[in-house]
Amino acid sequence: MSLSIRNQIPGTVVSVHPGEVMATVKVRLEGGQEITAAITLEAAQELGLAPGSPVRVLVKSTEVSLATAAVGGLSIRNQIPGTVNGITSGGAMASVKVGVVGGELTAAITKDAVTDLGLTAGSSVVALVKSTEISLATD
Amino acid sequence: MSLSIRNQIPGTVVSVHPGEVMATVKVRLEGGQEITAAITLEAAQELGLAPGSPVRVLVKSTEVSLATAAVGGLSIRNQIPGTVNGITSGGAMASVKVGVVGGELTAAITKDAVTDLGLTAGSSVVALVKSTEISLATD
Amino acid sequence: MSLSIRNQIPGTVVSVHPGEVMATVKVRLEGGQEITAAITLEAAQELGLAPGSPVRVLVKSTEVSLATAAVGGLSIRNQIPGTVNGITSGGAMASVKVGVVGGELTAAITKDAVTDLGLTAGSSVVALVKSTEISLATD
Repeated sequence: MSLSIRNQIPGTVVSVHPGEVMATVKVRLEGGQEITAAITLEAAQELGLAPGSPVRVLVKSTEVSLATAAVGGLSIRNQIPGTVNGITSGGAMASVKVGVVGGELTAAITKDAVTDLGLTAGSSVVALVKSTEISLATD
Repeated sequence: MSLSIRNQIPGTVVSVHPGEVMATVKVRLEGGQEITAAITLEAAQELGLAPGSPVRVLVKSTEVSLATAAVGGLSIRNQIPGTVNGITSGGAMASVKVGVVGGELTAAITKDAVTDLGLTAGSSVVALVKSTEISLATD
Repeated sequence: MSLSIRNQIPGTVVSVHPGEVMATVKVRLEGGQEITAAITLEAAQELGLAPGSPVRVLVKSTEVSLATAAVGGLSIRNQIPGTVNGITSGGAMASVKVGVVGGELTAAITKDAVTDLGLTAGSSVVALVKSTEISLATD
């Protein structure tokens, strides 16, 4: 299966916290970063997720936001530091490639945001992803 | 590969409209419904999407909204009519199963929304999904 | 703090309703509008959110949909009325600036949606945001 989802990062499940409808799953990436995914309880059960399960963390490019530094006091659980590798701009949107430990992320953000943040190749950024935007895959 | 993404609907690509950064891909589902996905141009190219390509439309449950009737004058491109099959409620969220032509969708919405809409098994609903929330997979 | 997230609206927490995994947080904006955010319980706890907490409501542009009038019978909790200030179109997507009480929102929607809704500067619209797409920040 090939996916249109640009961001696929390998990791290992650290913990699964089930609710009645949703579950939060903590995943440690190969680079050491810990990620929180909020998925349906049903999905966590069907994938048989448990501590130690190898997974891939999936994030659609349109769900990745960028900040120019780590952000405190933010409900967004996932903050991954990196460096801008390149930017492609269209009329309304821009695609920003961000090199992170162990790979590269793509963020699809507005062209306005690229301008306002003054992003160029080499800029230090932090990629932000809300837990509810993260999907998980097992092989 | 097994995915935590609950909603996976088979279809066929009807058209691919490339922009500079994003591409809109129209997909006809087996039930006849036409879906619009806004994905990165890069993804469309790497998957080799073209009219006739078989794909699966992927939508995370947290990205599915529900309405009690079709909604006009709305930027949300994708409206799929169905019937509520069942509801599981937690403390804050609820998981609503919606039977649609050719399958079932899961919507993770707030418990408040279930109450306000008066949803129960048998309710007629329309599932709404923004184009930017739709991913595509090829086999 | 520089964030790519275009939409940042100040408000005050009205209530926090915790579930096992997720929490729904009601926030009153300065313009009087009430917003619901569905965030992880962990995030609500770590930010110390309680009635009276000042917060900023954050919404990525790709998560904002537009309707030409208020929509009833819809699970989407957040509907903010406004007026289109301007539209920038790319090949596939468009960025629509919407003036609302106390500020401006950016919606990244498909160019097709702009055409179908007949949006131009001055159009009355309602911005729609699903609760699960809203993040919160404290200072």
